[in-house]
Amino acid sequence: MTQTRTKSRRTIWPLKRWIARLAAVIAGVGPALLGAAAPAQATERPPLVLRDMGSFHVGGREVTLSGLPVESVVLVPGSPPTRIDPNNSYWVEPMYAQYGLPAVRRGQFPLLLWHGGGLTGVSFETTPDGREGWYTHFLRRGWDTYVSDAVERGRSGWARYPEITTSAPIFRPQREAWEQFRIGEGLGSWDPDPAKRRQLAGNQFPADGYDAFIKQLVPRWTTTDDAIQRAYEALLERIGPSIIVFHSQAGQFAFRAAQARPDLVKALVAVETSGIGRAEDAAKLKDIPILMLYGDHIVGHPRWPAIRQRGLTFAKAITDAGGKVDVIDLPERGIRGNSHMLMMDRNNLAVADVIQEWLAAKGLWR
Amino acid sequence: MTQTRTKSRRTIWPLKRWIARLAAVIAGVGPALLGAAAPAQATERPPLVLRDMGSFHVGGREVTLSGLPVESVVLVPGSPPTRIDPNNSYWVEPMYAQYGLPAVRRGQFPLLLWHGGGLTGVSFETTPDGREGWYTHFLRRGWDTYVSDAVERGRSGWARYPEITTSAPIFRPQREAWEQFRIGEGLGSWDPDPAKRRQLAGNQFPADGYDAFIKQLVPRWTTTDDAIQRAYEALLERIGPSIIVFHSQAGQFAFRAAQARPDLVKALVAVETSGIGRAEDAAKLKDIPILMLYGDHIVGHPRWPAIRQRGLTFAKAITDAGGKVDVIDLPERGIRGNSHMLMMDRNNLAVADVIQEWLAAKGLWR
Repeated sequence: MTQTRTKSRRTIWPLKRWIARLAAVIAGVGPALLGAAAPAQATERPPLVLRDMGSFHVGGREVTLSGLPVESVVLVPGSPPTRIDPNNSYWVEPMYAQYGLPAVRRGQFPLLLWHGGGLTGVSFETTPDGREGWYTHFLRRGWDTYVSDAVERGRSGWARYPEITTSAPIFRPQREAWEQFRIGEGLGSWDPDPAKRRQLAGNQFPADGYDAFIKQLVPRWTTTDDAIQRAYEALLERIGPSIIVFHSQAGQFAFRAAQARPDLVKALVAVETSGIGRAEDAAKLKDIPILMLYGDHIVGHPRWPAIRQRGLTFAKAITDAGGKVDVIDLPERGIRGNSHMLMMDRNNLAVADVIQEWLAAKGLWR
Repeated sequence: MTQTRTKSRRTIWPLKRWIARLAAVIAGVGPALLGAAAPAQATERPPLVLRDMGSFHVGGREVTLSGLPVESVVLVPGSPPTRIDPNNSYWVEPMYAQYGLPAVRRGQFPLLLWHGGGLTGVSFETTPDGREGWYTHFLRRGWDTYVSDAVERGRSGWARYPEITTSAPIFRPQREAWEQFRIGEGLGSWDPDPAKRRQLAGNQFPADGYDAFIKQLVPRWTTTDDAIQRAYEALLERIGPSIIVFHSQAGQFAFRAAQARPDLVKALVAVETSGIGRAEDAAKLKDIPILMLYGDHIVGHPRWPAIRQRGLTFAKAITDAGGKVDVIDLPERGIRGNSHMLMMDRNNLAVADVIQEWLAAKGLWR
């Protein structure tokens, strides 16, 4: 039976290739597309076809330092020492963004993916255990997609402290996310030995990818909110009318950016937001479709019910001002076991589809 | 005349689209590819067709801190303070890599693009003035391409100092690259006013993109070479046999990685390397094709003749040991005006083509 199938594919292929070549030549798509249809290159997923991809930095400001000692430093072993005078001008607090633009655009506006605290845009790339992340998933759905690193994180770089940024940064230990992101059963559930780590019942975070996830952590500051806010607003102004999908700490930046420039925000998707906007300016969000999404195991957790409640209180301020906020608790949709890192959970694409369907229902995807 | 042409295109299009659709359906490529051939999506370049893209972290080590004071920090405005005990275990010194894999692979081995000091993989993405960079250019040529951020830079994150990394980092001022990367005429050629900045004759660096380039700078340490070396070797082991294209400081890491694992390195392309390998192990490189590339305005510069000479001396150690090193001074090929940031210069794709032709001549591209 298998033999017969193989034979019949062999017979069909020359015809398939011939038609594919003809079509590509007529359409003027070039040789790259041709080979994409060839069987030797076949993968389980269709190829990702982009009209472009790239990156840029936005925002920041100039700072001049003075009164600091001059240093002499060997930059490359064997090279003569370089005299380094830090009393100079610097460009600080810019923000990095990378983008993919699908050949077939189906989203009505670009999707901006904003990560949470102590993390970078890597949150939305390949999951720590090697599965597809939300960045490429949304690209495949035809969204122009922008992934950024908040100021002072990742490819945005960071500024000298305490001279420019006034505080010292915080570093997340290995155990923290396991115990606080609703992967394990709270304090004490992490163990240096992966086999001894205790997971919440039905946990969807890929436990075998936890040690890879920890490598994505970056230092964070607590005194950079204003700089981050400015840079996110510069990003929004550069890209133009957009939909913001934001996680955790990014909530404060996304809601405030939308309050500053409601004309540039076509929808807000709050993925377990831990930050909120200014309650007194809730009315500025009244014409923006808003979705708030929460995962599992929040009830009974020492911190998450208060974080969720703060989001819901802000949602009420928006609806009281005439706005519309849809709140989805995933377990009520039968989607169970999600940690705080929903975009990496084993069912991450099912969660993405909840967002996708909501955006499509709002007429933002065709 | 134009009228007639438009009419004839209208007549042809339904046929074109029909054949494109048929071919795509038969080849099972899916709807994404279909639309790519549609005229509404046409751009000046053919689409980038990838069988996959993504990212991962490799390497690093666990460090446990003790004896440090406990802190209380407000992480998100309005949230209760979080007690932060730094006496914990951390994962430090991993390295981030992103990759694009073309649907039609023409490179015999993956290309790894390793950036220089005080920079990240962003060096190889879109140029600061918004043109195509080497990452997507090599993808379009059919190379599986990996762009990484060295340990302690960009999305690799960085470790607490002085407890883990023993020194403090160095920050590049705005003027430094202009004066030292052979864009301007040396010390004093940079000015806060872009109109007053003096450029070298025939300079190819996009001067109007300089202030955007400065945003790509990140802090660097001088005591992390061993950690960076370990991570690059972990990257090489993860990806397998590869070709390394490396810039400036990365020379020391690439040559040493090749000396550690000559079996995994199929070619080395040194783009204005400022670092070299171990001269006593030069023989380990004797079976690896090596290209050393230099830009313009080196002669007469206060630092660059010595840097170039160090590279050539190392090249001689390799050839004395029976190896082969091709040295290309771009001006001798009629490619003039290149700064140290050749991958961003206005003629960056002409420089990439010199590399491409060399790799093809070595049988590494078909």
